[in-house]
Amino acid sequence: MGNGTYRRIVLASRPAAEPAESDFRIEEAPIPEPGPREVLVRVIYLSLDPYMRGRMRDVKSYAPSVGIGEVMTGGTVGEVVKSNHPDFKVGDIVEDSLGWQEFAIGGGPKLRKVDPSIAPISTANGVLGMPGLTAYFGLFEIGQPKAGETVLVSAASGAVGQVVGQLAKIAGCRVVGVAGGARKCAFVRDELGFDSCIDYKAENDLDRAVRAACPNGVDVYFDNVGGTVSDAAFRNMNFWGRIALCGAISQYNLASPELGPRLLGLFVGRRVRMQGFIVFDFALRYEAALAQLGRWVRDGRIRYREDIVQGLDKAPAAFIGLLRGENFGKLQVQLGPDPTGR
Amino acid sequence: MGNGTYRRIVLASRPAAEPAESDFRIEEAPIPEPGPREVLVRVIYLSLDPYMRGRMRDVKSYAPSVGIGEVMTGGTVGEVVKSNHPDFKVGDIVEDSLGWQEFAIGGGPKLRKVDPSIAPISTANGVLGMPGLTAYFGLFEIGQPKAGETVLVSAASGAVGQVVGQLAKIAGCRVVGVAGGARKCAFVRDELGFDSCIDYKAENDLDRAVRAACPNGVDVYFDNVGGTVSDAAFRNMNFWGRIALCGAISQYNLASPELGPRLLGLFVGRRVRMQGFIVFDFALRYEAALAQLGRWVRDGRIRYREDIVQGLDKAPAAFIGLLRGENFGKLQVQLGPDPTGR
Repeated sequence: MGNGTYRRIVLASRPAAEPAESDFRIEEAPIPEPGPREVLVRVIYLSLDPYMRGRMRDVKSYAPSVGIGEVMTGGTVGEVVKSNHPDFKVGDIVEDSLGWQEFAIGGGPKLRKVDPSIAPISTANGVLGMPGLTAYFGLFEIGQPKAGETVLVSAASGAVGQVVGQLAKIAGCRVVGVAGGARKCAFVRDELGFDSCIDYKAENDLDRAVRAACPNGVDVYFDNVGGTVSDAAFRNMNFWGRIALCGAISQYNLASPELGPRLLGLFVGRRVRMQGFIVFDFALRYEAALAQLGRWVRDGRIRYREDIVQGLDKAPAAFIGLLRGENFGKLQVQLGPDPTGR
Repeated sequence: MGNGTYRRIVLASRPAAEPAESDFRIEEAPIPEPGPREVLVRVIYLSLDPYMRGRMRDVKSYAPSVGIGEVMTGGTVGEVVKSNHPDFKVGDIVEDSLGWQEFAIGGGPKLRKVDPSIAPISTANGVLGMPGLTAYFGLFEIGQPKAGETVLVSAASGAVGQVVGQLAKIAGCRVVGVAGGARKCAFVRDELGFDSCIDYKAENDLDRAVRAACPNGVDVYFDNVGGTVSDAAFRNMNFWGRIALCGAISQYNLASPELGPRLLGLFVGRRVRMQGFIVFDFALRYEAALAQLGRWVRDGRIRYREDIVQGLDKAPAAFIGLLRGENFGKLQVQLGPDPTGR
């Protein structure tokens, strides 16, 4: 057929702790041909997200794990370059979870068109994609903030955290972030408009730091990290507080659970509610949420920061850095030219 | 006035860890005279419950702590011996939280009459009192069991646990208890009708024991203990599982939180919901719940076991034993003759 070849990254081995670049392998393969009701997508932006660490494990979870030799899963924004699908034409910008690869066949139920007039198309992997939706439903449905309450957000400069905090401000809350390093904290306060941000790397008493930043206690804790930051949050939860468990990135590279203080006894008398959630559960309402998030982004009420690295071969190192907190904003890999912008 | 004297137990000092008998002091005082709309109650049964350990701490909680020199709080069933209250007459059996003392003045909003024809009056401190109500609302409102689901209950032979499990059986669930020792487990299975009971003292792999006893996983975990039993429950929670946090008796005597494995990351993908609760929150519905519990007790659908020690002076040692799990069934202290029975 003469389509040429493309590159993709497969899982080479399952890391026991922190992944190494050798756990990934770059492969070349012939560009496939779309079948009936399918499209061929040239991937422009690949999203790198903490949940991918879970897919590298061989354990039952809410989604199947990636097999050895299989392409790593991942959200993608790309351009339709061939189409046998009546709803998509060549040149359309689309979003789907097509994995760590330069080309892929799309056409499943999750394939959706991205409107480049609203915001840069990379945002379909970020504030106007899965992370933004996670923030939206996690905060509003699970956290249920009320005006005047205090919302604490961990990984506040990250893809989800930055949206959570701004949504909570829109909802009339006092918002406190937790982030690693002075630069991230300054961004969270000055650019995103959080009321305060705790630099967890600079604090040796996180309990006291949270208490100082949240003088009225914590009503909603949106947790992306687990570990010692969560310990401090738990100690400061208010009566009838709610905890939205979105992730626990501090634990993802551990071969077995680390030890931490048992604090759940605090939740009895304080009637704290803790709820794990996955954004998929809200799929029927994605469209409405994206429309709302899009308006807020266009109006400048939600700002966002992306951290974009160049080239598929950089994906493994960038992903390893993500799990160390080295990225600053929504991490993505640009695999090829973006015809709509950069 | 010539009423004579009575004995009461006050908090002498705040224990840092396990309470000692010397943390309590027995006092004698003149029997008081009821004022307008008050009654004088001769306490017959004093309830001993794990929550009392929290009242001995000088920390903000959902209820005020007991001051040094103040009478220990506690639920009581007694007999009205003098009345200036139009709704109560001499000889009425009443329940209220009147504390660790042989006589007390009642008349507050929580004073209620106990019907001796339904069950022995001591049950007003147990299956037909606060512990039974805790089981009822905690299981149905927080745990929300559905027929066919698996319900795991810790401290299964205790005052709350024994009722939780039987209610879950009535609701059509598979019910597994956790208790300490072969005698308690046999009681839970053979007398209370649980499907299975794990002896946590005899198991060195609680995770495996829970998995074996709950082959379909745990849908509802009703937690009275915290600690390692909860670790095993957490590891076996099903998708959309619910955890009713009722207590954490394994932690109550610790000066500072012990360390345990961080397992909350499991709850994200499994969408587990954990909720602390206090029975007081359901006070408007006590009467309806007690009527229902009373019918089930009368019909033999709910059985119960009480562990009654004799004499106020035995209360401190019995309470210390309760925190060690030495009681077998709902622990009470009988302070004087029961005109309705024993």
